Amino acid sequence: MEKQFRLNLKKNKLKFSVTVTLKKDVLDPQGKVVQNTLVNMGMSNLKNIRQGKHFEIEVDENDTEVAQKKIDEMCKKLLVNLIIEDYKINKI
Amino acid sequence: MEKQFRLNLKKNKLKFSVTVTLKKDVLDPQGKVVQNTLVNMGMSNLKNIRQGKHFEIEVDENDTEVAQKKIDEMCKKLLVNLIIEDYKINKI
Repeated sequence: MEKQFRLNLKKNKLKFSVTVTLKKDVLDPQGKVVQNTLVNMGMSNLKNIRQGKHFEIEVDENDTEVAQKKIDEMCKKLLVNLIIEDYKINKI
Repeated sequence: MEKQFRLNLKKNKLKFSVTVTLKKDVLDPQGKVVQNTLVNMGMSNLKNIRQGKHFEIEVDENDTEVAQKKIDEMCKKLLVNLIIEDYKINKI
């Protein structure tokens, strides 16, 4: 009985990845520094590099859609600055 | 003629995304802080959150395989600390 309960608990976990990137027209000084460093190291055919953030989020939820809505709320409230950043949520 | 040349130049561009994550057993204090904040904001069914880095890289290259090898070299030499981090390269 308890074992079954624990199995159910484990089944509830859903995992998502969130990728946050700067909007196209926003300058990315950190990416620029990385780019210059790579070019100085001899990577001459590097054209462009931009840096962003990546989150792996696990939630206790059965329903993928509800979970996705929760993640979306987290992004909007804390993880993403919607003025200068875009985000994408993927189920893993 | 010149237009054709420019078109070819444009065709040479390949775009990759690189996701860098902390290895499973490495502590992620930044992720922990985000997790605590989200729980304090009322997201009670959040189970775990880990933060990583994300790069979008464009290279001047025709051959996907050669380009991928270049990106791999960039990761090993600069972008990733192989002792504590894992990385994944994806073609966009």
